[in-house]
Amino acid sequence: MKKIAVLGAGSWGTALSMVLADNQYTVSLWSHRKEQAEEISKKHINNKYLPGVVLPLAIHGTSSLEEALEDAAAVLLVVPAKAMRDVLKKVRSILKHPVLFIHGVKGIEPGTFKRMSEVIEEEIPEQLRQAVVVLSGPSHAEEVSQRHPTTVAVASKDLEAARKAQDIFFNHYFRVYTNEDIIGVEIGGALKNIIALGAGVSDGLGYGDNAKAALITRGLSEISRLGTKLGAFPLTFIGLTGMGDLIVTCTSVHSRNWRAGNMLGKGKNLDDVLAHMGMVVEGVRTAEAAYALAKKEDVDMPITSAIYQVLFEGKQPKEAVDELMGRDKKDEIAAFSESLVEKISKEL
Amino acid sequence: MKKIAVLGAGSWGTALSMVLADNQYTVSLWSHRKEQAEEISKKHINNKYLPGVVLPLAIHGTSSLEEALEDAAAVLLVVPAKAMRDVLKKVRSILKHPVLFIHGVKGIEPGTFKRMSEVIEEEIPEQLRQAVVVLSGPSHAEEVSQRHPTTVAVASKDLEAARKAQDIFFNHYFRVYTNEDIIGVEIGGALKNIIALGAGVSDGLGYGDNAKAALITRGLSEISRLGTKLGAFPLTFIGLTGMGDLIVTCTSVHSRNWRAGNMLGKGKNLDDVLAHMGMVVEGVRTAEAAYALAKKEDVDMPITSAIYQVLFEGKQPKEAVDELMGRDKKDEIAAFSESLVEKISKEL
Repeated sequence: MKKIAVLGAGSWGTALSMVLADNQYTVSLWSHRKEQAEEISKKHINNKYLPGVVLPLAIHGTSSLEEALEDAAAVLLVVPAKAMRDVLKKVRSILKHPVLFIHGVKGIEPGTFKRMSEVIEEEIPEQLRQAVVVLSGPSHAEEVSQRHPTTVAVASKDLEAARKAQDIFFNHYFRVYTNEDIIGVEIGGALKNIIALGAGVSDGLGYGDNAKAALITRGLSEISRLGTKLGAFPLTFIGLTGMGDLIVTCTSVHSRNWRAGNMLGKGKNLDDVLAHMGMVVEGVRTAEAAYALAKKEDVDMPITSAIYQVLFEGKQPKEAVDELMGRDKKDEIAAFSESLVEKISKEL
Repeated sequence: MKKIAVLGAGSWGTALSMVLADNQYTVSLWSHRKEQAEEISKKHINNKYLPGVVLPLAIHGTSSLEEALEDAAAVLLVVPAKAMRDVLKKVRSILKHPVLFIHGVKGIEPGTFKRMSEVIEEEIPEQLRQAVVVLSGPSHAEEVSQRHPTTVAVASKDLEAARKAQDIFFNHYFRVYTNEDIIGVEIGGALKNIIALGAGVSDGLGYGDNAKAALITRGLSEISRLGTKLGAFPLTFIGLTGMGDLIVTCTSVHSRNWRAGNMLGKGKNLDDVLAHMGMVVEGVRTAEAAYALAKKEDVDMPITSAIYQVLFEGKQPKEAVDELMGRDKKDEIAAFSESLVEKISKEL
């Protein structure tokens, strides 16, 4: 029976470990907290992150990276974006053989604005990695742990590696598509959290489904504008890791980012919101990164800018939304993605 | 003050009349039911379709088509798809001058499988129409009547006509984009109701947000496959009238189609569901039309086929959904829209 090391025992890392266990893998689930690792190994639960769920016996908790990585055929990284580089430095110092690196992290490294696969490539020398794959898509961990039907995509520059990851995770309730566009998948997964904040703001202001649908649609448009500028393939943003994940995140009250936005829309300020949440709200950091990237790449991102101003410049949420609505009369397709329209128009 | 004839006093026709009244138009709102026309004119309410809403005085109800059409600068059609042709025949017999035809109908003509703009072009001779425009997008009528922020698109083969429609409807809470792809806008608006049925089925079966997001995403993919085959522009399906409208319809419990699907998912059969709803469920007829069109055009539409089988061939909803999940391992982009990928790939 093959072994896979899962680094990060949050709700998503634990739910993915369950999929792997269902697929006949032995899983070494690493947590930096010893008590959590013991709870997983001895009680077969992860009470803080997946309450009420009994874990399969094939999942072993450990707080030792050495133990987790020993004889692992693949490493699945599911740690917070800001912790990724540190964890990788430790992995590199331990690893003796080349493994397949898969990550399920939806974020951008603060400060450097790098994608997670870039961080992996920087920190793990080529002779220690077979390839780098990202796994992403519309997937509440709680639902996966209940084996509800779920679909995700695995993307890599190396299509064979993506197929390998597909084989590892695919089963009757967890449907996995391959994709060669790792940039698009990582950008879509990270930036959707900004739009989720915006959807929460709109709902918090008491606006309705019409406004939220517009925000999601136009939000995907600007994510795809930035993404294609950064080298992504436009169609990725219409797929599971773009549109699909965006829908789940913006329409579920379980989304942390939506909840934070909702409080902002109701008049709370960012410090109060973050204090109240008591955990990382990825969209806040990602809004900073996307705002900087948009400026650098000279891409028009009105929703991201509005969210940035609400978060960091004290702009009133209502003013921001009303400004978004009051922009000039536009043509829909032209506003969408000028370069793409040009490309397609030539061919049609 | 210019006058516009709005034909059809359902919730959407009435809400759009309110937008027009807010924009300083006089509106003649036609209903084939005399009592409803009188209620609108004398009590300034439309109790059945927009309960609790007070209508502006600039909206006049009438059950006389002659009165509605007299001196109208534009005709806005908001009648059920199956009634469209009959209403147009009457309009033609009355109309003395060429007017701008705008319609806000999300359906396909039963039997002929024609789009609404095709029906208008067939029934209204060229000398009596300036142009044909469709207005569509993510828009619950109730929210528009409360002046909540809403965005829609107006599409026409004649961009000038679309701009005219944009000018007529645009205001601070009703943001209107133009689009030249009338085929895509009409197909997206009609076919989303099939996917909404499917989303309801999934929810009715007790599946979660992950499954629904996948269904919506893959659903848009197959709508766009059929649409582009019929001559639509691919990007339209990522816009307000495709993705935007689809999101609203699939995630709102107010959607009639979602509710019907939900009952099917819970084990009721179609006759019981339709009897219980007591009104038209557009998605049922549209599923029939799309199923036939997909066969004729040789387009793979697995979700539409599954819904069709549940509706008309007694297939068990759970079996249908599980079959959708169990399909072969696929590449995401390749499954998406082969011809489009080819077109874009050549250019990138």
